[in-house]
Amino acid sequence: MKDFSFYAPTQVVFGAKAEEKIPQLIKNYGGTKVLIHYGGKSAEKSGLLQEIKQRLTDAGIPFLTLGGVVPNPRLSKAKEGIDLCRKEGIDFILAVGGGSVIDSSKCMALGVPYEGDVWDFYAGKAQASACLPLAAVLTIPAAGSEMSGGSVITKDEGELKWSYDDNQCRCKFAIMNPVRTYTLPAYQTACGITDIMMHTMERYFSHEEMGITDALSIALLKKVKEYGPEVLKNPEDYYLRSQIMWAGSLAHNDLTGCGTIGDWATHNMEHELSALYGVAHGAGLAALWCHWAAYVMDEGVARFARFAREVLDVVDEDDTTAANKGISRMRSFYRSIGMPASIPELIGRKATKEELLLMAEKCSRNDTITNGNFKRLTYEDVLKIYTAANE
Amino acid sequence: MKDFSFYAPTQVVFGAKAEEKIPQLIKNYGGTKVLIHYGGKSAEKSGLLQEIKQRLTDAGIPFLTLGGVVPNPRLSKAKEGIDLCRKEGIDFILAVGGGSVIDSSKCMALGVPYEGDVWDFYAGKAQASACLPLAAVLTIPAAGSEMSGGSVITKDEGELKWSYDDNQCRCKFAIMNPVRTYTLPAYQTACGITDIMMHTMERYFSHEEMGITDALSIALLKKVKEYGPEVLKNPEDYYLRSQIMWAGSLAHNDLTGCGTIGDWATHNMEHELSALYGVAHGAGLAALWCHWAAYVMDEGVARFARFAREVLDVVDEDDTTAANKGISRMRSFYRSIGMPASIPELIGRKATKEELLLMAEKCSRNDTITNGNFKRLTYEDVLKIYTAANE
Repeated sequence: MKDFSFYAPTQVVFGAKAEEKIPQLIKNYGGTKVLIHYGGKSAEKSGLLQEIKQRLTDAGIPFLTLGGVVPNPRLSKAKEGIDLCRKEGIDFILAVGGGSVIDSSKCMALGVPYEGDVWDFYAGKAQASACLPLAAVLTIPAAGSEMSGGSVITKDEGELKWSYDDNQCRCKFAIMNPVRTYTLPAYQTACGITDIMMHTMERYFSHEEMGITDALSIALLKKVKEYGPEVLKNPEDYYLRSQIMWAGSLAHNDLTGCGTIGDWATHNMEHELSALYGVAHGAGLAALWCHWAAYVMDEGVARFARFAREVLDVVDEDDTTAANKGISRMRSFYRSIGMPASIPELIGRKATKEELLLMAEKCSRNDTITNGNFKRLTYEDVLKIYTAANE
Repeated sequence: MKDFSFYAPTQVVFGAKAEEKIPQLIKNYGGTKVLIHYGGKSAEKSGLLQEIKQRLTDAGIPFLTLGGVVPNPRLSKAKEGIDLCRKEGIDFILAVGGGSVIDSSKCMALGVPYEGDVWDFYAGKAQASACLPLAAVLTIPAAGSEMSGGSVITKDEGELKWSYDDNQCRCKFAIMNPVRTYTLPAYQTACGITDIMMHTMERYFSHEEMGITDALSIALLKKVKEYGPEVLKNPEDYYLRSQIMWAGSLAHNDLTGCGTIGDWATHNMEHELSALYGVAHGAGLAALWCHWAAYVMDEGVARFARFAREVLDVVDEDDTTAANKGISRMRSFYRSIGMPASIPELIGRKATKEELLLMAEKCSRNDTITNGNFKRLTYEDVLKIYTAANE
């Protein structure tokens, strides 16, 4: 096991009336003028945005709104928000939505007090020394951004989709009301289930054993795999939506990575898929994972075998057989919840050779071995995995 | 499941060189003059105290020390510390030790900015409006106080052992170096294992189902039950000591209680045992739990049966049989790690009738039904459980 730090300071308020606490929480964390940041029309249609505005008005907290965040959130939108926050003296950002809105809010919160270009952080050119306080009203569970320090932003020119991780960006509080997720379409729910499991799997597939962490990860994976198909059949079941919502936060607040070394190659490769094709992140992960797994399995087959046995109920005694069956069962699982298990299933056609080369090139931008820890992937490795996923 | 909040802001630094971070962390959290609070001579003998003093000196951070905290920490010692902090302008308390030292530090941190008697908080007469920042260098895992908001203090007159829970008292950071726990005597290690499991069990035995939480609790319990006997055989095994140390924090930072309602009757009844006899908290819990369990089991036998099957590998299909076997296995487990499973095993004699009446009376002080949620216990119930534990 590795040394670790664990820091998950976000105050979670979970329940069917959690929104009632918003004004007091904003005040507790020093907010005096708020920017409500959101995505499309769903926050308006559901009445949530109106409810939050009313609550802030009733509490005498001035606010502005900025909508229009898209999936794979754009640097341009964040910059628009940074300018607005500076001009209007905003001192607290309230993200209302899912991972994209929260990530966009983090980018804004980092950018407001920074004199340079906020992209510097994502490009690895600078470390932030300050961050505006922010919080989330979560409507789409999965990204885990409401309790994580990370954010992923797409630079409009060149379709660069890069990430930045900083404890300063962790939400001060997160409002989680499972009822808000009842109307999530099945496809988006399935993307979320995939992403939640993948956040745990990226940390579980490590050469470091950590008994307590591994046991918690396996317990979480097993439960999400159980509840996922159930929630797709019963989208308005409070209990099931609750389990998925809470699992999404725990899967990405670092609990499942204490003492292990995350791999993250599948995430990195997926970012290129969604940057190029605009596909949903969860679907992209499902399209790649089994191909990554088959490619790297020999680096630590016992770990894959344990995953197969404990999460997927494989019973074979031979590790290699068990590991292979596990990968095969994950492929079936993805398809059973309506997720793709290859690039053609994801985008409706094969990727061209040029597209594969471009993604492999962009994914390996910094040097040839940036991707992965379970197996360090070179440019050639990445290209082989994309190619396998394209069959 | 119930609505819940989850707030565990303590920054954990875990590893064999974690102490190196102490000065910077104190500065990060605004400390400029520190009181190092500790227990007996073990912190001196191990060299830890000297090392911390040297690190603070090297970093130019002024400090004072106050030792002498005893198990079941005393109000009188905390008041001595409060006076000292006020007189010397201390603005940060660093607890070096286990739960008793951390609890004493919390009491001091609450008392310094409070004009009244700090006992008011423990007596339920006041809520704190401020708290000095504090942190922990953990040397005895189990109490979980390093990540919790709670503290238990014993008032010297009358042996009142009461608790107070407040998010403001959560440690800013916790330094966890498993090597520091190598020298813990076997009895104290076993007390810790018992307390860690009990913190999880007090939350698990709830009439509220919460799938994700229940799965994490069971995973944690199963692992601690597995590693506990191993660590007693291999007290200088870094990996095993790490598992116990980290489990101790997770068992009491509220993770295992999200969505359930804690019971806490066994804890409350134990506080009277350790207040009266000065016994170790963990041992007192072991002496009581099976008797509590047998008494309340009929209130929700399915929950006990699940515990028996998933944590203790009981295979019986009938719930009542499984539940009873589970209780019996816990009794055997306690004895196998050198813990008592009754009051006579704990104190070496039977408690007198007067002692049982006194404990039941003190334990039920506020009204007749303060104890327990799995089953609300009246004074008579408490007396019956003490009496059963006295056989």
